[in-house]
Amino acid sequence: MTSNTTQITDRIARRIADAGLDAILISSNPNILYTSERVFRGYVYITADSRVLRFIIRPLGITDPTYIYIRKPEQILEALASAGLPAPANIGLEFGTTTYSDILRLQKALAPAATHDASHILADCRMVKTPHELDLMRQDGLHQAAAYRQIGKLYRKDMTDIELQIEIEDRLRREGCLGFHRVAGSLMEINMGSVLAGDNADAPTPYEFAMGGRGADPSLPGGADGTILRRGMTVMVDMNGCFNAYQTDMTRVWRIGEIPQIAYDAHECSRRILRTLEKEAVPGAELSALYQTGLDIVNQAGLSQYYMGHSQQAAFIGHGVGIELNELPVITPRSKHRLEAGMTLAIEPKFVIPGTGAVGVENTYVVTPSGLECITPFPEEIAEF
Amino acid sequence: MTSNTTQITDRIARRIADAGLDAILISSNPNILYTSERVFRGYVYITADSRVLRFIIRPLGITDPTYIYIRKPEQILEALASAGLPAPANIGLEFGTTTYSDILRLQKALAPAATHDASHILADCRMVKTPHELDLMRQDGLHQAAAYRQIGKLYRKDMTDIELQIEIEDRLRREGCLGFHRVAGSLMEINMGSVLAGDNADAPTPYEFAMGGRGADPSLPGGADGTILRRGMTVMVDMNGCFNAYQTDMTRVWRIGEIPQIAYDAHECSRRILRTLEKEAVPGAELSALYQTGLDIVNQAGLSQYYMGHSQQAAFIGHGVGIELNELPVITPRSKHRLEAGMTLAIEPKFVIPGTGAVGVENTYVVTPSGLECITPFPEEIAEF
Repeated sequence: MTSNTTQITDRIARRIADAGLDAILISSNPNILYTSERVFRGYVYITADSRVLRFIIRPLGITDPTYIYIRKPEQILEALASAGLPAPANIGLEFGTTTYSDILRLQKALAPAATHDASHILADCRMVKTPHELDLMRQDGLHQAAAYRQIGKLYRKDMTDIELQIEIEDRLRREGCLGFHRVAGSLMEINMGSVLAGDNADAPTPYEFAMGGRGADPSLPGGADGTILRRGMTVMVDMNGCFNAYQTDMTRVWRIGEIPQIAYDAHECSRRILRTLEKEAVPGAELSALYQTGLDIVNQAGLSQYYMGHSQQAAFIGHGVGIELNELPVITPRSKHRLEAGMTLAIEPKFVIPGTGAVGVENTYVVTPSGLECITPFPEEIAEF
Repeated sequence: MTSNTTQITDRIARRIADAGLDAILISSNPNILYTSERVFRGYVYITADSRVLRFIIRPLGITDPTYIYIRKPEQILEALASAGLPAPANIGLEFGTTTYSDILRLQKALAPAATHDASHILADCRMVKTPHELDLMRQDGLHQAAAYRQIGKLYRKDMTDIELQIEIEDRLRREGCLGFHRVAGSLMEINMGSVLAGDNADAPTPYEFAMGGRGADPSLPGGADGTILRRGMTVMVDMNGCFNAYQTDMTRVWRIGEIPQIAYDAHECSRRILRTLEKEAVPGAELSALYQTGLDIVNQAGLSQYYMGHSQQAAFIGHGVGIELNELPVITPRSKHRLEAGMTLAIEPKFVIPGTGAVGVENTYVVTPSGLECITPFPEEIAEF
């Protein structure tokens, strides 16, 4: 246990007690990583009075005393008894991320305990980051910016969006990007990120990302589709910022030759929204009000038909980010959350201009008492390739 | 509907009828892709008498008449009635891959229908590929081999395993690799693949891959870990073969300078197992018998302590492959399946030699009436960097 994991498991324990549960049993990789700073195959057991046991199946060889080796979940109650802990009467499980079959198996293994959904407890705790988590995310932001600094020189005439993306992937990987990022929701799929050039930005996607793109194959219908980069297009780069257990999310736009004035106007509108929210987004602020602030700025500029897509529009402009790319809270018209210090927000007011492409900026921020701290520092203007 | 999807949905329909169900409702991306040749957000409804409806939420704009737009699963029964189909009394859902929360929601939306697990029906159907699926996999194998042909010249003195992997990723992506592959099981995580050098091959991992590796970070504890490539090491390359909806799985080994004779012996033992199984693995053969054949060859060679890992050993040497990297059937001591023509198998008898690294070959095969057809053609000998 590090002081960070103790801080996290104590926070979870308080929520377990508040919910009237005796304990929770965590089995998903993101939440195992959150509570243990490593991925292992097994379960993390946290009681309402802050006792933590880790039931591990694989890998072999871990000697930390909070780890207890088991072969299967049917041994958990016995292992609890051996550790001198009482059997729980009410236990929380991750109904929102664990398969139906696995929950049925756990319910049987934990009987006669009653099981309850604890997914929201973990998602709520994960919204507010610890100082250690924020340090890791600040490192991500610096690495991601360092890789983005190399993008300007990667363009070659007549290359495709996929060729450009491959070059960016290479630079990200050399900067230490793990080449993988966790995205919440079994229906969400993405490779190393999204490069959208010209009208491909307007192709609708099944995924719940802010922007679309046809993708290279119907089996992964999002992002770059082989569009040849041509004069008059914008190229939106929204690539993987995962350099450790955490990640940042960051978008910048390049252009090839001249683009219409409306594209610049929309891009500046995006930046105006960010500047406004950077001040308005203080602890206590309502997420739904932040969405409305953004929308008001867009409506005033007369750009609503291009906002967050054109042929298919998304009604959100931001999301928490951390172990997973898409965490709580979300900035939507119907968000119920209020901001707290230590939350993170990727804010991405974007526009799709038909015939030109996508514009807008995305930064990852930390909520502080005085507003937002940007942890993805990089020039925001549309740069020319 | 293409003739391929019709063939697939007809096969599923027969299994639905055999199971005494009226219909199944598919909601996972891999099975949506399997039955529709594309990913969309929504549901595929297949009846026991081969009627197919696709309830689509996103993306907008699909005009195929088998697609019916809905906003949420609560509209499915109404949409069925509108299409003139009876409400099902017994319906299969994917209990093995859908979250507990989502199954509860579907059960409520489909009430009063009784729901049953249909995960095994889909997994069983997917084991035996259609001619179209096999064509796509053969294309994958040729692309993967073309990228592997460039590996020999990527080595530079004192580079790390991660630097080599980044170079291979680049070559795979330029060959058309999508940069993403589906892996079954929410606990399985991998980036573009695995490059294992020297003793890192013996680091145990939480994941259920054949080999281990510490990985670059505790948040992704598998594969390359920053080992500097040195004389006397083997380098095992097991990288992403996904160039369309399907994929192939292929491993080759390089060496730096001389390696001990036992490493060559173990590598040749792996090849001997493949040559034997290529003949034995005919329709009707028991998978467990194939495992035993491999083990007998290993025992005879006196190499069992190095087989499928050294500090942590795996009791399997092969698996189906297709839309997901790890499909049925599996080659383990306890497999219940028998081979059928049209199944695919990635067979990977591997060894970890302490102080040297991993050796062994993996090919992807198609089961034919006369044995195995290798679809990952590439020289198998240990090559020198």
